[in-house]
Amino acid sequence: MKAAIVGAGGYAGQELQTLLARHPSLDCALPMRGRAQSPAEGHLLALDLERLGEVDLVFLCTPHGAAAPLARVALEAGAKVVDLSADFRLKDPAVYEATYGAPHPAPDLLDVAVYGLTEHNRREVSSARLVANPGCYPTSVLMPLLPLLEAGLLEAEAPIIADAKSGVSGAGAGANATTHFGNVHDNLRAYGIGDHRHTPEIWQAAGTDRIVFVPHLLPCFRGILTTLYLTPRTGIGPARAREVLQVAYAEEPFVEVLPPDTSPTLHDVQHTNQSAIGVHDAYGQLVVVSTLDNLVKGAAGQALQNANLMLGLEEGLGLA
Amino acid sequence: MKAAIVGAGGYAGQELQTLLARHPSLDCALPMRGRAQSPAEGHLLALDLERLGEVDLVFLCTPHGAAAPLARVALEAGAKVVDLSADFRLKDPAVYEATYGAPHPAPDLLDVAVYGLTEHNRREVSSARLVANPGCYPTSVLMPLLPLLEAGLLEAEAPIIADAKSGVSGAGAGANATTHFGNVHDNLRAYGIGDHRHTPEIWQAAGTDRIVFVPHLLPCFRGILTTLYLTPRTGIGPARAREVLQVAYAEEPFVEVLPPDTSPTLHDVQHTNQSAIGVHDAYGQLVVVSTLDNLVKGAAGQALQNANLMLGLEEGLGLA
Amino acid sequence: MKAAIVGAGGYAGQELQTLLARHPSLDCALPMRGRAQSPAEGHLLALDLERLGEVDLVFLCTPHGAAAPLARVALEAGAKVVDLSADFRLKDPAVYEATYGAPHPAPDLLDVAVYGLTEHNRREVSSARLVANPGCYPTSVLMPLLPLLEAGLLEAEAPIIADAKSGVSGAGAGANATTHFGNVHDNLRAYGIGDHRHTPEIWQAAGTDRIVFVPHLLPCFRGILTTLYLTPRTGIGPARAREVLQVAYAEEPFVEVLPPDTSPTLHDVQHTNQSAIGVHDAYGQLVVVSTLDNLVKGAAGQALQNANLMLGLEEGLGLA
Amino acid sequence: MKAAIVGAGGYAGQELQTLLARHPSLDCALPMRGRAQSPAEGHLLALDLERLGEVDLVFLCTPHGAAAPLARVALEAGAKVVDLSADFRLKDPAVYEATYGAPHPAPDLLDVAVYGLTEHNRREVSSARLVANPGCYPTSVLMPLLPLLEAGLLEAEAPIIADAKSGVSGAGAGANATTHFGNVHDNLRAYGIGDHRHTPEIWQAAGTDRIVFVPHLLPCFRGILTTLYLTPRTGIGPARAREVLQVAYAEEPFVEVLPPDTSPTLHDVQHTNQSAIGVHDAYGQLVVVSTLDNLVKGAAGQALQNANLMLGLEEGLGLA
Repeated sequence: MKAAIVGAGGYAGQELQTLLARHPSLDCALPMRGRAQSPAEGHLLALDLERLGEVDLVFLCTPHGAAAPLARVALEAGAKVVDLSADFRLKDPAVYEATYGAPHPAPDLLDVAVYGLTEHNRREVSSARLVANPGCYPTSVLMPLLPLLEAGLLEAEAPIIADAKSGVSGAGAGANATTHFGNVHDNLRAYGIGDHRHTPEIWQAAGTDRIVFVPHLLPCFRGILTTLYLTPRTGIGPARAREVLQVAYAEEPFVEVLPPDTSPTLHDVQHTNQSAIGVHDAYGQLVVVSTLDNLVKGAAGQALQNANLMLGLEEGLGLA
Repeated sequence: MKAAIVGAGGYAGQELQTLLARHPSLDCALPMRGRAQSPAEGHLLALDLERLGEVDLVFLCTPHGAAAPLARVALEAGAKVVDLSADFRLKDPAVYEATYGAPHPAPDLLDVAVYGLTEHNRREVSSARLVANPGCYPTSVLMPLLPLLEAGLLEAEAPIIADAKSGVSGAGAGANATTHFGNVHDNLRAYGIGDHRHTPEIWQAAGTDRIVFVPHLLPCFRGILTTLYLTPRTGIGPARAREVLQVAYAEEPFVEVLPPDTSPTLHDVQHTNQSAIGVHDAYGQLVVVSTLDNLVKGAAGQALQNANLMLGLEEGLGLA
Repeated sequence: MKAAIVGAGGYAGQELQTLLARHPSLDCALPMRGRAQSPAEGHLLALDLERLGEVDLVFLCTPHGAAAPLARVALEAGAKVVDLSADFRLKDPAVYEATYGAPHPAPDLLDVAVYGLTEHNRREVSSARLVANPGCYPTSVLMPLLPLLEAGLLEAEAPIIADAKSGVSGAGAGANATTHFGNVHDNLRAYGIGDHRHTPEIWQAAGTDRIVFVPHLLPCFRGILTTLYLTPRTGIGPARAREVLQVAYAEEPFVEVLPPDTSPTLHDVQHTNQSAIGVHDAYGQLVVVSTLDNLVKGAAGQALQNANLMLGLEEGLGLA
Repeated sequence: MKAAIVGAGGYAGQELQTLLARHPSLDCALPMRGRAQSPAEGHLLALDLERLGEVDLVFLCTPHGAAAPLARVALEAGAKVVDLSADFRLKDPAVYEATYGAPHPAPDLLDVAVYGLTEHNRREVSSARLVANPGCYPTSVLMPLLPLLEAGLLEAEAPIIADAKSGVSGAGAGANATTHFGNVHDNLRAYGIGDHRHTPEIWQAAGTDRIVFVPHLLPCFRGILTTLYLTPRTGIGPARAREVLQVAYAEEPFVEVLPPDTSPTLHDVQHTNQSAIGVHDAYGQLVVVSTLDNLVKGAAGQALQNANLMLGLEEGLGLA
């Protein structure tokens, strides 16, 4: 089968190229310019729109706003679409407009789009023509949080604190003050406090707006580590929470729930599609540490899980 | 005046040497070996105990347990003491034993010791003979938290989340798996979840055990950034919290409360004695970002503030 | 086929485990402890000596001195051996003793051993029972240098300068002052000037002692970049030198000779088995930039090239 | 006395601001915008040209080409000028044009300008109205090289290899592909091989074009380490070379010649105005390691040495 990548010069697009190069049954087929000479140039690879009918699936790695019209063209040409931008993540176009500062570019497609948090939406993804690939931060928050919420382990009224730390690749390949070495190296900064665009996505997927999400920019390149502070219902401790997660993910090759008193680090997940989770108690709060590689499970890896499902292939192909 | 540094080969001791080299009226006087050739060697500088009577003040930069007996010798020789170890921070010897795994080495001196969070204990420090210099993490938590607690702005029953991130110098100059470049670089790890030794110190100083403190090890050398998540009482927002902090620290040269929507970074405070604080709202929680240089305001700098006060000098000498 | 790794807890051993996990026809077969929890622990994985007869090939990732006796045991049990230590690299036991400060531990095996710079010794490696895997620095120097020397392009009497820069993984997983984050981060140091142990190996393989090799320790984890300064014979410029290298490596999948005015960086080769070479002129000197990943082409990757050849497998298996 | 900084938002300008803030008798006096909020913005601070007559000295931290006309205005207003750009370093306007791709912007001022390698040109600097502050790389090369050349220790015909490694601050505060964290972190690149703009400056100051200078970009922020490979005249070894340097710099507080078998690292000089030099033998070559902080001794610190001399102040004021 054949796939095209639009926006192959950005970090997510480059990672997808790397993954597809090893994939046994999905090739990058459309003519496109080779990998951008410098990742920081951030050029989009040219998409030959007239030839879209030749591919089975298109990965959109463009900025939000630019993806939706390309998705429409690709769908009309008969290709399936995994959109790594934010264009189809939010179901309510009013929330999209409030979050991204512009009307939704293709509201009629919102009903077609399926939110691609693979382990939690596998059936819908399998039959989808258009998948909205989740954000990197939301994936790191939701993987541990959803099973705990669904099992009713958390105090209903208490805030859910998600203190997230990400490597710089999450800020993209564009050169600006945020990504200048002199501003990142030996530094740490909190940002987007109270208004980060991933918050509505997290709220929607978790079904609650009690989640307080604050991201920080780490002086490293890859990986997200999110520390969750959760108020458990009376009588619920880390053993029960860990058990719920272990049951939820028992059959999942890309999720690892760690043993007691063990906490995952970025090194454990970099360059892999793994989501790794540690569960702890700290003075009555559940402290859950969730890690993943933002470019793999947080972007290109999960996109490939979704693409494999959409094409009827084995979900893990090209990701082992 | 003359000072001695015991343990001048560790990071805090080295920082003190640097500060004293610029101090106009306090010299390192006792014969000691020069700065350790390699910080990682972690040698203690030899203290000529018989000559302690010649100095006005001794800085103890030894590991906990080793400091207390040295403090006794120095006090008996007539010198004042600033102890940068943990030996005199906890008032209750039972808590010390539970925390450090050994009986307190000098319980009779606990009543003599004054907790040296300078801005909050200036009068007691000024007349003290023995000051327990606060831990780096506690200083980063307490500087923003104490005024907010004292003003009664926080919901009394809600947990106080302190998610702290520190550079590796906090782990000391000793070579071990924790400080190996290969384990730190490009990595982030949470540690001490639920049992870090700075928690009892924070609880004691804040007068509450509702504080959930979780530290993380950053891939950089200096600085702590702590993100606090606080549940305000009804009607209290970030403007009121910022105002309380601004009033509390209006006359303090080493504390900066930032304007709205501004968050301090490690770069703002590295190599300075500043504590910088930003106050934000995120979906009803107060999110307070607190930064300092763990080796300066979190160790040697605050120690020098305290020493200056104890010796009747201007508090900021050698720190500008 | 089956292989065993002795010393699988060190960086080279870990890299080999990663490579073998993807290898289609060579498994890690002997019972061994799993990957060391912390790379810095540097434990050797237990080798069940009595079961050595079960494997086809043993990779020795131990320190020098420890490898030679293990090689003897393995050979006698019928296994082939790739030794990643320095024990069999130097042909002259007197040079070994002068370099490593101890008599050679198995001088009778020196004649059996083949120096495994694969692209330059493929035939001998293919029939070898014992291969001495080259050092990381020597590989980075020799890959560009050997064809230029053999083609007679260099002034015979001029010194050959090899200024090499390596990531910290070259210093091993052991925790010491050299590998402490505080000594590496934001730093650069030259070391071993005039007495580095890789110099005799480079001299032997190049057949000349005119090579001045000086290594430096970079503040990063992986990769070597060596800048060579070569005095060409009259009339020889970079175009001719590049042509010689392109011809020498035309059929080699793991060597890339870059186009004019292009210089390889560490990012180009990290996590790959590639040796990348750029050739330049600077005011009459040939300046050749040679890069590789010290843990792959400089250790585990080249070891696997050699093992594949020794076992009659395709040389690149598990390395693409 | 009063000074103005033009271009105070760049890295050199920021460093000058930091140094002047501590200077006992030289103030930043002209109204200028405060330090740029983000160093990467690289804004020039506004210079109120009409008020130039109020200051004693102007530091020009602008890009080359922009400095020369500003120098003229300042000189005519009666101020002295230290130009940190390249505009007055090269004596021959034809070499300037060949190097910088544009005619020299003020050739009539070239005779007025004095090359400010302070330790080697102190008398001329003291009476100068316009000083061309040396480049960072040239300073690192020339400090060890000039005394050895002047003493005639080096073989006259042999090439002089200068392999230099610099932190990213040398590339400036502008955001571009070169300074993007993703391209620098965990990387090393050689650049400007055979055509770096600092080569003509080095040749001019050393009086020879036998110097082969190749710079590399390190994954750290501050500091240059240059490794020089020198062919000594027969009978000359490192002891004699070290002696020559020790004599040359015996009275110089900002130059340190290290003992035998000792090599300076970036950590030894960062945030100081020191030039540190180690001298070694490697197989007949003199290997000289030269380090400095590119923003201090390589820019703002040396500029302040020069300014102090020009204003009749003690050379080291504000630099201890």
